[in-house]
Parts: sequence; C-alpha cells; structure tokens
Amino acid sequence: MAQELLSREVKVLLRSQDCSERRQTVRICIEQLTASSPVHKKDLIVRMTDDTDPFFLYNLVISEDDFQSLKLQQGLLVDFSAFPQKFIDLVYQCINEEKKEVPRFLLQLSSGAALGSSPAQLDVVETNPFKHLTHLSLRLLPANDMEVKTYLAMCLKCIKEEKVMLHHKLKKTEDDLTRQLICTQQ
Amino acid sequence: MAQELLSREVKVLLRSQDCSERRQTVRICIEQLTASSPVHKKDLIVRMTDDTDPFFLYNLVISEDDFQSLKLQQGLLVDFSAFPQKFIDLVYQCINEEKKEVPRFLLQLSSGAALGSSPAQLDVVETNPFKHLTHLSLRLLPANDMEVKTYLAMCLKCIKEEKVMLHHKLKKTEDDLTRQLICTQQ
Repeated sequence: MAQELLSREVKVLLRSQDCSERRQTVRICIEQLTASSPVHKKDLIVRMTDDTDPFFLYNLVISEDDFQSLKLQQGLLVDFSAFPQKFIDLVYQCINEEKKEVPRFLLQLSSGAALGSSPAQLDVVETNPFKHLTHLSLRLLPANDMEVKTYLAMCLKCIKEEKVMLHHKLKKTEDDLTRQLICTQQ
Repeated sequence: MAQELLSREVKVLLRSQDCSERRQTVRICIEQLTASSPVHKKDLIVRMTDDTDPFFLYNLVISEDDFQSLKLQQGLLVDFSAFPQKFIDLVYQCINEEKKEVPRFLLQLSSGAALGSSPAQLDVVETNPFKHLTHLSLRLLPANDMEVKTYLAMCLKCIKEEKVMLHHKLKKTEDDLTRQLICTQQ
C-alpha cells in the first residue's frame, strides 16, 4: 500500500545531450510505502510521468539505506523521516517560481540520450548570478514495458472508478432536480 | 485506422491442459483496418480481452493471404470480403445459445499452458449428440508487454474522453434543470 504525498504537474528545464535547453511539463508524484514489511518500511517512491504521453514513466525507489547513501553523497543534514517533507517543500519552491522570467528555484532534468530511454537526473537548482547551487539531485530510471503496463492498468482502474462515481452523481443530480421541478410545478 | 465491427462479452468454454472445463467470460473484439496501404488493406484484427484483467490480451491479425491459408486448411467457402460478417454471425449464434443448459453453438477456448502465456485456440463449435462440429478455428497469440501497454494506453485515452463528455453532460444537466427550476419558481 502506498500513501500519496504529492502529485503535481511541474515545469522542468530539460537539458539535452546537445546542451540545448527547453521547458517541459512533467508530473511529479511522491508516494510513501506503508508496507508492514520491516525491510521496505516507509520506502519513498518518486515517479515522473507526462499527462500527454502514457509511455513516459520514470521511477526511483528510496529506501532508508538508499537515503543514507544519498545523505552522505550530497551532504544532506536531515534524517529519512524528515526527508519527504523537505523534498516536497523544495518542489513547491520551484512551482512558486515557475511564472517568473528568471526563476530563483527550478527543477532541471538532464538525460544522456533521448528522454524516455536512459536514466535521467532530476536536480533542484537554486539560481543566482554567481553560482547555481544544487539542493538535491536524484537519478530516475526509465520504466520498462512491464512497469509501464502495470502503471497504465492502475491508472485505468482509477479512471474507471472516477467515471462510475461521475455517472452516479449525474443520475442523482437528474433525479434531485427533476423531483424539485415537479414539486415546484404543482 | 481501424473500424470496430464487434465488441461483445461472450461466454467461452475454457478447456485446460488437464482436460478440465469451465465457463469464463471474455470480450471478443473484431476490427477491420481501413489502411490505405495496398499491402495491409482490410486486415482483420481479432482481439480477446478480459474486462476484469487488464493484462489479459490475445491478438490475431488476418490478412487476405492469411485468410486464403485458413480457407484452404478449414474448407471455408466464403471469400475474404464476406468472412468478417460470417464470423460475427457465428459469434452471435454462440451468444444466443449462452443461457441454455446445453448450448447448440458455443465458443471453446483451449490453451496449452496457463491461459495468458501461450497461444490459445478459439473454436466455434456446434454440438450435437453424435459429433461436435468445428465451424471455425482461430489461433490467437498472447500479447507481449509492449502490446499490452499500447492497448492499455488506448483504453485509457478512450475512458478519459468518455469521462470528459460525462462531465460536460453533468454540467449541462445541472444548468438546464436549475434554470427551469428558477423559471418555475418565479
């Protein structure tokens, strides 16, 4: 079971291998596993998708051990339990800066080859005229066909449920308003 | 571009390798390609899915050449242009017999190994006390992960469009009935 902590469309600065840059919109989803298994307890899942491209799917699973490596490599000061919220705060800082001409905080996505087929690096970057500072750097892996099909099946299930609820709401609305109309006409 | 000729849930008699039999519901979809390419003109696509299992997908593409082999092997008398309707008629004969204790026409599905991982044979069988007659026998192939993900992406796109239309209908219904209510109350 996974608890969703964040699901937002964000603008990222896409840096391609040929050093060209362009802005692209992706969806960042952060989930926390609530498995009772002591091994995978509270694993953090970072997922990157594209609402306009069902085959675009990048994943990263951060276990407590993974985080300790990340913490060491990048000199982070928080512990694993505080990390998700800090990461979310950073994403929101980037979202808040999106509309500016020169955003002070931004999400940068770099990929070795064409985006979608090789690992991608997602950086939270603070820009200033002197030096660009990387607050956090995560390496996301492109999903294989099996992972994409599993993800799409999950999306399909959710959308079908939403559609059923919408259908019920339509029926109830029709019934309620029609009943009121009949009462008023009498 | 493909034109859908049939999409129906049907009951099939599932015959497993251990000779056990049980009834299962699957969806049969028959589409005709309307490609302008002379090579693949009017290819027939037979798809078998399970509304309750997003990963269950079997396909068969029947080109005009494939049909000529099928015609020869199975002694069919119709030509390729007449075949789709004849096939649909046979499926409907099975559907019409579904509720009977002893159906006179039925769809039989046989699979070497576990259903989903090996080719399956779909037969239209006419039962009678003397001999079971096979009117048509088609060999369907289980889809790989790439084909399943492509199929699910297509389903997702359709459901999303249906959901948007349902949302518009809800809005319009609310507006129309509320307006009528206001008019009547005045």
